[in-house]
Amino acid sequence: MYQNGKYPSEVLREAVEAIGSLPGVGSRSALRLALHLLGQPAENIRHFASAVGRLADDVHYCRTCQMIADSDTCPICADSTRDHRTICVVESVRDVMSIEATGQYRGVYHVLGGVISPIDGIGPSDVRIKELVERIDRMVAGDAADSDSGPSREIFPAPVPPEIILALSGDVEGETTSLYIYRQIEGRGVKVSTLARGLGFGDDLEYADSLTLGRSLLARQPFKP
Amino acid sequence: MYQNGKYPSEVLREAVEAIGSLPGVGSRSALRLALHLLGQPAENIRHFASAVGRLADDVHYCRTCQMIADSDTCPICADSTRDHRTICVVESVRDVMSIEATGQYRGVYHVLGGVISPIDGIGPSDVRIKELVERIDRMVAGDAADSDSGPSREIFPAPVPPEIILALSGDVEGETTSLYIYRQIEGRGVKVSTLARGLGFGDDLEYADSLTLGRSLLARQPFKP
Repeated sequence: MYQNGKYPSEVLREAVEAIGSLPGVGSRSALRLALHLLGQPAENIRHFASAVGRLADDVHYCRTCQMIADSDTCPICADSTRDHRTICVVESVRDVMSIEATGQYRGVYHVLGGVISPIDGIGPSDVRIKELVERIDRMVAGDAADSDSGPSREIFPAPVPPEIILALSGDVEGETTSLYIYRQIEGRGVKVSTLARGLGFGDDLEYADSLTLGRSLLARQPFKP
Repeated sequence: MYQNGKYPSEVLREAVEAIGSLPGVGSRSALRLALHLLGQPAENIRHFASAVGRLADDVHYCRTCQMIADSDTCPICADSTRDHRTICVVESVRDVMSIEATGQYRGVYHVLGGVISPIDGIGPSDVRIKELVERIDRMVAGDAADSDSGPSREIFPAPVPPEIILALSGDVEGETTSLYIYRQIEGRGVKVSTLARGLGFGDDLEYADSLTLGRSLLARQPFKP
């Protein structure tokens, strides 16, 4: 009994399978976690299930940047002290959190929700590229309208073009997506940039992969003492 | 924003905290798992939450051995081909599954649901020792009743005394609990044995390999207090 993936209870089996479907959680760990939960007071288990279940229905997405939020506008898009003319394009919610954790960025974001990956059947229309293009068009159209309005031209200088930072991964899918987006937005009056690539700060040459090292050499920067 | 444990959404924060409360899941892993779930179709998230939530209310415990089951009697206690006069006393559901996986044991179980651990405030009455003693008394009383009933004594030999195998972990709590149980059941007409320790002292049953665990069962020794 209970050999080869047999469980003493169907309810336990279903819980183990659900937990084991999470990435990086093997069946042994899943069983351990399910039995841990089973050993908790029922109230705790219900709280766990409800906290996780709310991810299905109670998470909002920012109307502007598609970051997750508690309402239709995320705190970053709602923050008037941030630079709304610099848009950092990222793959996921996690990337926004990583960049925010650096404390180095004062612009806003656009969360694609994925990258183009033909092998996984993910095409350009499956990620939020159209929304990005529309957002850019609205912004540039607003600039043009401001410029047209008579005397303001003499008082306010022409606005600096918006900047779009393509902050996608350096793998094939990320590079493909960056190139695709670039083709869509070039000529629309925006400056397009991408993350600096090279050795990590503090990295040893000895342990760098040769692709990174090679590209770091080609993209070498003036030395600033 | 989103530094030092701040999250873009309260719902996400609560899910991360719930997942991070599982043993061995750090806050970084918890975030990764929560974001993975968030990226799933809502139906999958609901299924996950429901499968786990059912652990709170839909798991039954065997009336006899307190193993988890889908009804009030577990398949082992319901199996008439097993030896119901040999009771293996274990700490947890996990231990029953480990022993069953060895394929070496044909008796039944008694799941204590914990071990005595004064440091954690777990006393003898917090684990199912009283239920074990009552179970033994019922069994021995049944034997006596059979023996008393006149001529059967000549036809059937006196029954072999039931055997209680104390299969607890080799740590202080396990040894303490074994000794406590031994004191409770000695003199009640049962044979008491314990697992052979081919395992290192201090090893948990949960992490033992099946071969060692199976051999330990076969080579069980009389309990010597």
